[in-house]
Amino acid sequence: MNIVISGLGIIGGSYAKALKKYTDHYIIGINRSEQPLQQALECGAIDKAGSPEDLKTADMLILGTFPEAAVHFVEENAHLIPSGCIVCDTCGIKSRICPQLSELAAKHGFTFVGVHPMAGKEKNGFSASEADLFVGASCIIVPCGADEDKVEIVAKLAEKIGFSQIVYTTPENHDRMIAFTSQIPHVIACAYVQSPCCPVHKGFSAGSYRDVSRVAHINEKLWAELFTENRTALLQEIDVLSEKLAAIRTALENDDRGKLEEILAESRRIKEELGE
Amino acid sequence: MNIVISGLGIIGGSYAKALKKYTDHYIIGINRSEQPLQQALECGAIDKAGSPEDLKTADMLILGTFPEAAVHFVEENAHLIPSGCIVCDTCGIKSRICPQLSELAAKHGFTFVGVHPMAGKEKNGFSASEADLFVGASCIIVPCGADEDKVEIVAKLAEKIGFSQIVYTTPENHDRMIAFTSQIPHVIACAYVQSPCCPVHKGFSAGSYRDVSRVAHINEKLWAELFTENRTALLQEIDVLSEKLAAIRTALENDDRGKLEEILAESRRIKEELGE
Repeated sequence: MNIVISGLGIIGGSYAKALKKYTDHYIIGINRSEQPLQQALECGAIDKAGSPEDLKTADMLILGTFPEAAVHFVEENAHLIPSGCIVCDTCGIKSRICPQLSELAAKHGFTFVGVHPMAGKEKNGFSASEADLFVGASCIIVPCGADEDKVEIVAKLAEKIGFSQIVYTTPENHDRMIAFTSQIPHVIACAYVQSPCCPVHKGFSAGSYRDVSRVAHINEKLWAELFTENRTALLQEIDVLSEKLAAIRTALENDDRGKLEEILAESRRIKEELGE
Repeated sequence: MNIVISGLGIIGGSYAKALKKYTDHYIIGINRSEQPLQQALECGAIDKAGSPEDLKTADMLILGTFPEAAVHFVEENAHLIPSGCIVCDTCGIKSRICPQLSELAAKHGFTFVGVHPMAGKEKNGFSASEADLFVGASCIIVPCGADEDKVEIVAKLAEKIGFSQIVYTTPENHDRMIAFTSQIPHVIACAYVQSPCCPVHKGFSAGSYRDVSRVAHINEKLWAELFTENRTALLQEIDVLSEKLAAIRTALENDDRGKLEEILAESRRIKEELGE
């Protein structure tokens, strides 16, 4: 296949490197700035530094940019995308963008399949990309009504580049789950490190601090976009968390050790039942 | 030295193993139940399964039990502890127990030095102990007015068994910092996993979920005790966290992406300034 990747950040760059490492597809990179393209060419992550014109012969387009930018790119270049081409995003939210991309696909005759690779780091840019970023990770596929054979091509490719699990879901369920598994941990990390104790934590901290604070090293533009584009589900999860925190606070305020034990035991049981 | 360790759980057990691995001291284990003593003898983590009578010839007593149990053990056996013996706790809270242990030490002529090894796991018991649990970790020492030469013996021993950093502080500052670095992450983890999304997270999660939820696999008896014994500092940190969460929630509720970016950027700067 001719695969065009638009946006060579950590995700697009890792797709390029993984596709070159694990498949024989021809990879064309498109990026707003020149430098990542040159780096990708030099290290062999792409075969060609391309332009939207290359979409004319593309079998697949992978959108490695932020959600809004991904939709804009497809809007602007939809007339160049051949029918038969599979367009995949890689965004962390789905309800806001999938309907727009599906509509563009229907109008112009190509196929859209939503994809969310559950992999990343607290670093960004092509320099943070890795051929094995997806190894062992889960790939969420949001078919959005695309033909089964096209969805299967996307799934097979995901398995080839290292994903160990494929999960199929709807945009709505994706966003609800991601609010919990990914967005709330970022909200927590950012709130947590703003304690006056944080700047003087060294010597007093171990694994717990490190793990909870890790993703506070955040890309604020990306995450502010992801948060606002998933506002309803995220507000709901913040409220659930606040309610659970308040229950612990009340037990502590009342010096009620029995109640605290009960709450903590419930959390332990949840982890144990998950085999974690 | 003759070193008595009372309580062979993960911490006391790791002290025993580390002392046997890195020093030539003679190690005597005391434990309420028999099984850990037999395991410790069999694997060479202790030289002798002892009893409180062994305190009579002890140069050092390490308290590996929960805070209240540690105080009770010293109260009951203070008459057996020779003057010159150094008694160290290993507890995660200090303000509530250090004054009691210092008073017992003054009354009976031995020395008390507060110690908090900043190491642990989400597992418990002797079977989870490791000779290298403390390697690279920080050891917090709370001298509580003990003679400098005794404090130095404790610090040198900590370095010998692998700690990479020794931090000296007061009980009050210890508890304030620990509320932030260790207790709040445990509160967060336990609140987090109680979301209705948690039992169905598989396939939708990656590192963020794993890191934040890790310590929800909690020992509820130990942590309910640690939380209530550090009630004031922990309540304060819960309130700081709730306030920061509320600020993010308000920006999101208002769909104010600029404000969200500002809050997240502040968190990123805090991490960057810490070099994390």
